[in-house]
Amino acid sequence: MGSTTTVRYDFTPEMDHPILIEGLPGVGNVGKIAADYLCEKLDGKKFATIYSESFPPQVTLDNDCVVHMACNELWYAKVNGKDVVFLRGNYQGSTPEGQYLICDDLMRDVFLRMDLSYIYTLGGYGTGQMVDKPRVLGAVSDITLKQELEEKGVVFSPGEPAAGIIGASALLIGFGQMYNIPSACLMGETSGYFLDHKSAVAMLQVLENILGVTVDKTDLDAKSQQIDELTAKVKEIETGQNTNSDLGYIG
Amino acid sequence: MGSTTTVRYDFTPEMDHPILIEGLPGVGNVGKIAADYLCEKLDGKKFATIYSESFPPQVTLDNDCVVHMACNELWYAKVNGKDVVFLRGNYQGSTPEGQYLICDDLMRDVFLRMDLSYIYTLGGYGTGQMVDKPRVLGAVSDITLKQELEEKGVVFSPGEPAAGIIGASALLIGFGQMYNIPSACLMGETSGYFLDHKSAVAMLQVLENILGVTVDKTDLDAKSQQIDELTAKVKEIETGQNTNSDLGYIG
Amino acid sequence: MGSTTTVRYDFTPEMDHPILIEGLPGVGNVGKIAADYLCEKLDGKKFATIYSESFPPQVTLDNDCVVHMACNELWYAKVNGKDVVFLRGNYQGSTPEGQYLICDDLMRDVFLRMDLSYIYTLGGYGTGQMVDKPRVLGAVSDITLKQELEEKGVVFSPGEPAAGIIGASALLIGFGQMYNIPSACLMGETSGYFLDHKSAVAMLQVLENILGVTVDKTDLDAKSQQIDELTAKVKEIETGQNTNSDLGYIG
Amino acid sequence: MGSTTTVRYDFTPEMDHPILIEGLPGVGNVGKIAADYLCEKLDGKKFATIYSESFPPQVTLDNDCVVHMACNELWYAKVNGKDVVFLRGNYQGSTPEGQYLICDDLMRDVFLRMDLSYIYTLGGYGTGQMVDKPRVLGAVSDITLKQELEEKGVVFSPGEPAAGIIGASALLIGFGQMYNIPSACLMGETSGYFLDHKSAVAMLQVLENILGVTVDKTDLDAKSQQIDELTAKVKEIETGQNTNSDLGYIG
Repeated sequence: MGSTTTVRYDFTPEMDHPILIEGLPGVGNVGKIAADYLCEKLDGKKFATIYSESFPPQVTLDNDCVVHMACNELWYAKVNGKDVVFLRGNYQGSTPEGQYLICDDLMRDVFLRMDLSYIYTLGGYGTGQMVDKPRVLGAVSDITLKQELEEKGVVFSPGEPAAGIIGASALLIGFGQMYNIPSACLMGETSGYFLDHKSAVAMLQVLENILGVTVDKTDLDAKSQQIDELTAKVKEIETGQNTNSDLGYIG
Repeated sequence: MGSTTTVRYDFTPEMDHPILIEGLPGVGNVGKIAADYLCEKLDGKKFATIYSESFPPQVTLDNDCVVHMACNELWYAKVNGKDVVFLRGNYQGSTPEGQYLICDDLMRDVFLRMDLSYIYTLGGYGTGQMVDKPRVLGAVSDITLKQELEEKGVVFSPGEPAAGIIGASALLIGFGQMYNIPSACLMGETSGYFLDHKSAVAMLQVLENILGVTVDKTDLDAKSQQIDELTAKVKEIETGQNTNSDLGYIG
Repeated sequence: MGSTTTVRYDFTPEMDHPILIEGLPGVGNVGKIAADYLCEKLDGKKFATIYSESFPPQVTLDNDCVVHMACNELWYAKVNGKDVVFLRGNYQGSTPEGQYLICDDLMRDVFLRMDLSYIYTLGGYGTGQMVDKPRVLGAVSDITLKQELEEKGVVFSPGEPAAGIIGASALLIGFGQMYNIPSACLMGETSGYFLDHKSAVAMLQVLENILGVTVDKTDLDAKSQQIDELTAKVKEIETGQNTNSDLGYIG
Repeated sequence: MGSTTTVRYDFTPEMDHPILIEGLPGVGNVGKIAADYLCEKLDGKKFATIYSESFPPQVTLDNDCVVHMACNELWYAKVNGKDVVFLRGNYQGSTPEGQYLICDDLMRDVFLRMDLSYIYTLGGYGTGQMVDKPRVLGAVSDITLKQELEEKGVVFSPGEPAAGIIGASALLIGFGQMYNIPSACLMGETSGYFLDHKSAVAMLQVLENILGVTVDKTDLDAKSQQIDELTAKVKEIETGQNTNSDLGYIG
């Protein structure tokens, strides 16, 4: 199907071989939290809005009762002499075909024209259990990209994730590979049961290494600590339950 | 996807920066009832019919056994020196993508060419409980539009509706915002359990204020009174039930 | 959506303002049985095959293990100096959008170029109960068409069918109306529980009146008689059951 | 709908009226196993990759954590002076419409330009029970093709498979018929309960006869023997159960 992805520009930033960072919603929203936080801390500016029939036919209202249409956005930041484009938003396409068509359109009509130097797609790797020290797993478009990422803190673990990668994070690294753009998917380990700011902190540290920048992580650290407390609580309960069931056998 | 929205014109009214009023089916059909009633009272004339593969593949029969294809319609009325276009019909697109594509096509091929001065999309705000005095809530494409609407009787209540707006009412205000056309969504408060003519009367009063016109509301008032009786009955029953259950505790 | 309806011609019959008769599968297959039977008796010739992504991605095998792709077909017959085109097949589009797109494509690319004099779409009117003497109900694109059809045996009964008409029979009369081609939908009354050859005989008689021709109905009459026997059996059983339950009260 | 099937070429093999062999996933993966095995043994080279929005929006990871996008592939081999193109992959389109559009696009944009001499689509014929000596059933685009295939070991059995053929195997023989390319579907008999390497061996023998070549089948024979052992085990169990239940009646 032909699609009607519409990209509306607020302005066109001057950029030289920018880096693309995708942080759309996904498991534990790890990628979204990290990308949104980093973009804000780097004083990113929104420069384009993306509309598609694959986003829900919906507007949300802010506190002023002003409407906001379901969309994705492109943000621009300059860091360490490097141009960075963020793909952000509250939605992914609501059908598999829709996800493909949006990414395909963006690739052909927007990203290829930017002459990207690198694509990083950010996501979560859901393990289904509480994670003490979340790793940031990696997948690459080309084997030569692994070593440099390992030096930045990315873990490559054959067979993880076993199910592969889905959605925009999968498609953009796939299209990156297709068009010979160095591309990597970074996946923060997460239980997947809640918005995982702790995994996002781990992700952010890798991104700092990659971009050669340090951002104030105070806000994120506070939320990350809540995750620690939650994890401790869950473990306590689990241990308590075991004790109880042992007692059960005695009585 | 490309869509095949077909617009067939009966005639092309001469208009100067017309106002668009959308009143398609929705919660309690509040918007549809108000728009249809107002259009009839203003001696509106149908000037175009809209067909789409997203409407059901269906014809209905009138009492003469003449068929009527599933469609939307554009009606024209002149009121107070202002040109008004009504978007009316018995259907919204039957898929989310279909709803988007129809509104997108209408916007690009029809409404943008009309050089609209304002878009009002009409809907219902379902509260799930009987409403004594339905408010007409508002959402706007731009914060500067609020004050004037408040003066016309529209209530802006942050956080209402919490779920945002969906369907044609959402898309047309969203597209209006995109193309810098002043746009507002008016939502008549309603239980949502039945066709709510009472909420439609409240909506109609706001529209009268906006257009600076008064229409004969006799027909609508009769039906609205039935809603009042229905509401009173429901309350009576609810009170009765409470009494009974109190008694139950005593016995 | 744009669709990829493909029409492949075996030959192009010379025709002067032909009549289109649509007889695709539907309730009781009344329309399909009547159209297929009439076309065969009139020595119709297949002249085009219609493929679409909305038909199932399937081939069936004949007794020679030769494949036949899911399709619709156009057949041509000459009767009484009139050119007749039959739209026949074992499938309707498998989605509502698909049904619309196929009919829309056929209308624009095939039927409008034929300069049709009349469109008859054939269907069944499912009543949910055994029918002794099936009527042939009618719906028209224009009120002026009713009288002539009544003279041919068509019954116009306001409010029947209450649910309107769906599928190709609905769309082709709808598009006929849109393009000012005299169009009627003929609906054979049927229980809808089985392939209803009896209702098809009634339909065929109306078509004979319309075309001014008489065809040998021996084959169809035999199957129609089986329906009579089935109907009698069902009634017998129903009566028997009533008797039994009466007895039950006595005992 | 228009589709966005993308074909990316690694190189363009020089070919003279090549034979197309389709071996995509299906019942028991018989066709896929046979096509993949034959292509490898003939030293096939991948020359093109096929992407589509109808494949899942997914990448899988190999042991080096390098991503592989969901796709189909075209491979080239030369055997016995004949050029052979293999259509291989891990996916079929995930919707009926998607399957049609991919095959339609490939036919128009790729295969018709190759001036194919023959299309063989490979599939499984699921019988639902263990098969001792799997036959290879055939279906043809034209009755004149049967005798030659029978001489190569293909069985034509009227009424098998009763349900016809679906998916790419159906569509490519159907399109082959449409464009007058000699086409046959070969179906290896299989229980359909597991990957059936034994049925694939039978399929391979037919393909050897057709291409006039013999390939080393050691690897496949080993797996095929496992199927034999599995079949024997299932029979043993079934017999044992009967004995047991007989005993049950005695006791």
